[in-house]
Amino acid sequence: MKRSGPPIVTLTTDFGLRDAYVAEMKGCILSHCPTAVLVDISHQIPAGDIEEGAFVLARAATSFPPGTVHLAVVDPGVGGTRRALAAESPRFRAVGPDNGLLAPLLDGARVVALDMDGPDGGQPAPTFHGRDLFAPAAARLARGDDLDSLGSVVTDALVPAPAAATPTVLHVDHFGNCVTNIDPRQVPAGGRWHVQAGKQRISLRVRTYSEAPAGEPVLILGSDGRMEIALRDGRAATTLNLARGDRLEVIQQESTPPRREKNS
Amino acid sequence: MKRSGPPIVTLTTDFGLRDAYVAEMKGCILSHCPTAVLVDISHQIPAGDIEEGAFVLARAATSFPPGTVHLAVVDPGVGGTRRALAAESPRFRAVGPDNGLLAPLLDGARVVALDMDGPDGGQPAPTFHGRDLFAPAAARLARGDDLDSLGSVVTDALVPAPAAATPTVLHVDHFGNCVTNIDPRQVPAGGRWHVQAGKQRISLRVRTYSEAPAGEPVLILGSDGRMEIALRDGRAATTLNLARGDRLEVIQQESTPPRREKNS
Amino acid sequence: MKRSGPPIVTLTTDFGLRDAYVAEMKGCILSHCPTAVLVDISHQIPAGDIEEGAFVLARAATSFPPGTVHLAVVDPGVGGTRRALAAESPRFRAVGPDNGLLAPLLDGARVVALDMDGPDGGQPAPTFHGRDLFAPAAARLARGDDLDSLGSVVTDALVPAPAAATPTVLHVDHFGNCVTNIDPRQVPAGGRWHVQAGKQRISLRVRTYSEAPAGEPVLILGSDGRMEIALRDGRAATTLNLARGDRLEVIQQESTPPRREKNS
Repeated sequence: MKRSGPPIVTLTTDFGLRDAYVAEMKGCILSHCPTAVLVDISHQIPAGDIEEGAFVLARAATSFPPGTVHLAVVDPGVGGTRRALAAESPRFRAVGPDNGLLAPLLDGARVVALDMDGPDGGQPAPTFHGRDLFAPAAARLARGDDLDSLGSVVTDALVPAPAAATPTVLHVDHFGNCVTNIDPRQVPAGGRWHVQAGKQRISLRVRTYSEAPAGEPVLILGSDGRMEIALRDGRAATTLNLARGDRLEVIQQESTPPRREKNS
Repeated sequence: MKRSGPPIVTLTTDFGLRDAYVAEMKGCILSHCPTAVLVDISHQIPAGDIEEGAFVLARAATSFPPGTVHLAVVDPGVGGTRRALAAESPRFRAVGPDNGLLAPLLDGARVVALDMDGPDGGQPAPTFHGRDLFAPAAARLARGDDLDSLGSVVTDALVPAPAAATPTVLHVDHFGNCVTNIDPRQVPAGGRWHVQAGKQRISLRVRTYSEAPAGEPVLILGSDGRMEIALRDGRAATTLNLARGDRLEVIQQESTPPRREKNS
Repeated sequence: MKRSGPPIVTLTTDFGLRDAYVAEMKGCILSHCPTAVLVDISHQIPAGDIEEGAFVLARAATSFPPGTVHLAVVDPGVGGTRRALAAESPRFRAVGPDNGLLAPLLDGARVVALDMDGPDGGQPAPTFHGRDLFAPAAARLARGDDLDSLGSVVTDALVPAPAAATPTVLHVDHFGNCVTNIDPRQVPAGGRWHVQAGKQRISLRVRTYSEAPAGEPVLILGSDGRMEIALRDGRAATTLNLARGDRLEVIQQESTPPRREKNS
């Protein structure tokens, strides 16, 4: 957990960038830990969308050095009975609500439930735990306070991350690429399979966007190890009318059909 | 004004995030004060909307440590006759135009009018005082220059912050919550009042969003001490058709009517 | 190239702010150079729009101190045959694809083509050179590694910046101002000229937005030395129906017509 550089705190929220809310959290972190380096992951998680927040956070977190504190607040249950967590593993440190948002980072982590009177003793505003409870906790971890000083160790089960068991569109990115949970081994390049996405059939796997034939949706191994449905020079989600949560089918073919049944 | 950490400069503008403008200001600040920690408050203030800028800045500023320099540029009068200000109080330091934007931070502050030839001697571009006049002034404050070295002390009245005297929607936030200037003491939980917002009647006050009955607009004490009109799992502003500046009525009831006259 | 402060790395991309992509690049930079100060220029370059990226980057870069590393990724050819560059001149350091994006910063620069196996030895993901190739290269420059250690010196021609030879709208900014490549000396204040923009005729040059008569489009010298078409209290691009790439005509008038032919 020891690093040579200053402590890093990342922020992931559904607060948007128009209001003062994100800045209030940052002011609070810098008040408690003046040397913290603050890095935004995203503040454009759709309001209350824990699944999307967990997806974006889990993906970004792997690029940060060990010891980074990941502060995440997508928290529709704020002020209710959900627990507030801080956690530490050899790979990640994380602070946020116990609603599944942090779950992908908690493998092998030691987890505490934050004292709800706030680490500073004051009562947190019941509508803004991001500023009054989570940000101070993240700052204390960043400045080196011991995890166990923030609350009581959690031994029972945490709320798990939302997970789709069947082939599904997990995320539509800024470019319209559809990130899926299809196992890359099921759809080898040149193999006998196709992916059915609504009425569309995708049967070509390429290595780079540049290799995709114009106008034909393809499968491509994304930079996080997930299979994406992509369209060169276009938005696959728009053209194929796909949205997050849409079901897909991976169909293995016994015989040897023409590799591309459909002209593009 | 002395702090242990590096100097913090916040930025609040109506420049948006698409163009180079915000980055130009940051490059300028780092050129003059290489150790400055830059924190965005918002760059999505509607163009020229001083009132909204003042609201967002005032709210965010209270979460930053004393000594923070708040640089704000919502400046429809740039290049005209409005003064350019730098200010310092025990609580805040601030730089921006004299148009009301900074007013909520200036209680008890010493204020100077910036020399219009720019702190560096060069003539500022008449269309971009943010980069050429305000950013260098903020950087000089951040690196420890004396306030009085930036200009001449102002002794006459400053342009005041816009203020609504009657109950009004002050701000609609990212979640559609309507922040108001209703006095919390006028609308106690369980009290005999209702708030009339257009044709809607709001008569329930709750402590957290989780406590609000589904579909019924409620009053809630926001984390900045203001009463908000909120709708659980929805956007109050959209459902109630409320926008910033809309008038509200707080009606005190003499008799004891049913607490909730309206089914939700 | 030596500076007193910590190293600065700017980021310009078409990745948007919703996904994890920008944060992944930042995590990677901080992993390699923990003291780097990260400054966003823009992540809202339209997808694949190299010309707009080059415009915004070139404009912002001039406000940063020498030695700043400008990392830019608008890279529709990722994974194809385009080269990956790092460059250094007395004024700028830059990292990005060889597609014209960096060209305005490369005057007099020493340029290397990055080793495509990545500075760390690993193979970069073929779809995300921003994270796996460019970000580590930028971090290595920032921490003081020698440019030549990143790849092989380029001696043949680079892809040039896109450039319009005739009068054109180069950029429409957040306020609807239309930045042009009209030579300021062709349109002196009080001179005998007009600019034809579609059916609109612009014949007045002012020094500040405040000086512009209400409702009349004017020319104004922007803070980057380019002539802009502006409309006080309005959006020139919307009112005049102008978009990036639109042609303009500068017409010099021999006789002395009334300076303002059109009532505003």
